[in-house]
Amino acid sequence: MSGRVYLVGAGPGDPGLLTLKGAACLERADVVVHDRLVDPRVLALARPDAELIDAGKEPGEPKLTQEAINALLVERARRGQVVVRLKGGDPFIFGRGGEEALALAEAGVPFEVVPGVSSVSAVPAYAGIPLTFRGLSSAFLVLTGHRCTVASGDDDPDWESLARAADTLVVLMGMSRLGECLAGLRRGGRDPSTPAAVIAKGTLGEQRVVVADLARLADEVAAAGLRNPAIAVVGPVVSLRERLAWFERRPLFGRRILVTRSREQAGQLSRLLAEQGAQPVEVPLIRAVPPASWEEFDAALTNLAHYRWVAFTSANAVRAFGERLWAAGRDARALAGVSIACVGGETDRALRGWGLRADLVPETFNAAALAAVLC
Amino acid sequence: MSGRVYLVGAGPGDPGLLTLKGAACLERADVVVHDRLVDPRVLALARPDAELIDAGKEPGEPKLTQEAINALLVERARRGQVVVRLKGGDPFIFGRGGEEALALAEAGVPFEVVPGVSSVSAVPAYAGIPLTFRGLSSAFLVLTGHRCTVASGDDDPDWESLARAADTLVVLMGMSRLGECLAGLRRGGRDPSTPAAVIAKGTLGEQRVVVADLARLADEVAAAGLRNPAIAVVGPVVSLRERLAWFERRPLFGRRILVTRSREQAGQLSRLLAEQGAQPVEVPLIRAVPPASWEEFDAALTNLAHYRWVAFTSANAVRAFGERLWAAGRDARALAGVSIACVGGETDRALRGWGLRADLVPETFNAAALAAVLC
Repeated sequence: MSGRVYLVGAGPGDPGLLTLKGAACLERADVVVHDRLVDPRVLALARPDAELIDAGKEPGEPKLTQEAINALLVERARRGQVVVRLKGGDPFIFGRGGEEALALAEAGVPFEVVPGVSSVSAVPAYAGIPLTFRGLSSAFLVLTGHRCTVASGDDDPDWESLARAADTLVVLMGMSRLGECLAGLRRGGRDPSTPAAVIAKGTLGEQRVVVADLARLADEVAAAGLRNPAIAVVGPVVSLRERLAWFERRPLFGRRILVTRSREQAGQLSRLLAEQGAQPVEVPLIRAVPPASWEEFDAALTNLAHYRWVAFTSANAVRAFGERLWAAGRDARALAGVSIACVGGETDRALRGWGLRADLVPETFNAAALAAVLC
Repeated sequence: MSGRVYLVGAGPGDPGLLTLKGAACLERADVVVHDRLVDPRVLALARPDAELIDAGKEPGEPKLTQEAINALLVERARRGQVVVRLKGGDPFIFGRGGEEALALAEAGVPFEVVPGVSSVSAVPAYAGIPLTFRGLSSAFLVLTGHRCTVASGDDDPDWESLARAADTLVVLMGMSRLGECLAGLRRGGRDPSTPAAVIAKGTLGEQRVVVADLARLADEVAAAGLRNPAIAVVGPVVSLRERLAWFERRPLFGRRILVTRSREQAGQLSRLLAEQGAQPVEVPLIRAVPPASWEEFDAALTNLAHYRWVAFTSANAVRAFGERLWAAGRDARALAGVSIACVGGETDRALRGWGLRADLVPETFNAAALAAVLC
């Protein structure tokens, strides 16, 4: 396969907001060049042998210059590698994805853009704030905090136009200039009582929201100690949050919950907890490991035909048994003439993956019940 | 499980731009209430037994009123159903998702918002137009064609503010009012030579783009016969399209290619073709069907132990054999003492799913080679 670059938007934070196409690109990538803020759960979708390169730019402390990133993408694609350039949010909304695309085009490297869910709309949505709403807002304006001090091509931002063009304003990356920005909108004619909000760490379990009118927002945000990454929204739609805030109202919102199951088994429980708003933290206290010596086990495998029953007490046991059997060059036929018992549904499903069905499943799902029935 | 509603953004058209969370919600839904423009490939992710309700609103010809949709969502959730309300683009950018959320909140029905990739950014991205670009655009303004004739709360749009507030303007659902809108921007002070574009059916194989300056765009779009769904972009970033257009330059862009493999086997080929820009159309000319009578086959299964070899000539054959064996209450152990041959890699992988390995795979992958080796 010839080299190519996918400019992929990772979405606003919640790893569930990655696109199917973005996930497919990650699974195929030889190299992933990612922003600092991309969630580790998204990076985990890359192949285990893929190379991960952090191009993260701390504010004021660039790890890789933009030119170095451009050169890296071109060089890796020319080596024939499939490269994913993974950016927070959407690659073509701020974040300089356009510049990277241009560098690739000029170098003759094939590239594709895989748009992502932008923080512009998703972060307000997780705070219960729609950008448009019949009768409240039929247009929205998106700008960065930077724009609040220097408008493109002008010495001073055109506050009157910024204040009047759209009912809803979204200001990205603006915490350090929030005060200037909000004051400018007031000078431009926005009513000081206009509802406004700042959302920090939006779409994540750590999400925090401060709501106040335009006149008081900067002070309240400073008092609450909110920092970047944060997004400000100004306009009457902010008043809907009171009724539409759904994310923070889920039963387990903001709770960090330790999941102590083994790494292989933690996934499903973590997913259920996350759906209820929790932040699952996987700390496996149990780990299924191979025995120190396979000697006894291999002897049993060799003499499998002499056993009347094999009892499986977990899905892990089925997997370990199957893999050892397979590694010895044998397969499910080796269990001919042997009856199979197992402790319950999940173990039974694991057997099914080896073309085998349990001849015996006790009504109570544990090893003691199994022993009782076998006896 | 108690009833709840997921307001899910389906993305701008390309089904690959659905989010992982959106796909997970569809897989869990009892009912899917969807917009007219949602791609059938997205709807196909719902369970086969899920109820699909088309709430599609043709312009000027509503199938379900907004009030009827709101009532439907509330009623189904109260029945205890998991409801997905699937909307084009993002649910909180136009499209009245906010109103639906409010109706749910007022009825006390639990709901979640699953943001989608918005057409606002993705459609221009597929046309090679970034909404922001260093030195060209540091802000963008999004409005609908409707806004071009009646501004909220005003009798006349404030063209001067709309023209001056942002370097990039995105106009959604605006074809019928495109001329008025572009003329308004010129009256508001936008240079008539500003680059501008209209993108119809963006992100799909039928995507068409017309680029012209602000003064000529409306005429050229009319001449080209572009219709809704379409999006207009105005601003200097449009000039980047010449170098950044990647979507239409893929080798098979715009080609409709018939895929005649059986429905079960068409998926992978279709995916590879789509990656190169083609629109695969699946028309299976081959279908694997069960035999008119299983009698002979079942007799062979019963006497399996008397055979020396079983030769599998396709993955389909492995599946059919395995399922029939399983339906008879047996499993892979039934093949004890029988040697297994198969024609090639895919068939071998299918065997692996039954816990079996091929004892013989010929070097050439077809049934004739297999027969020769067995002889």
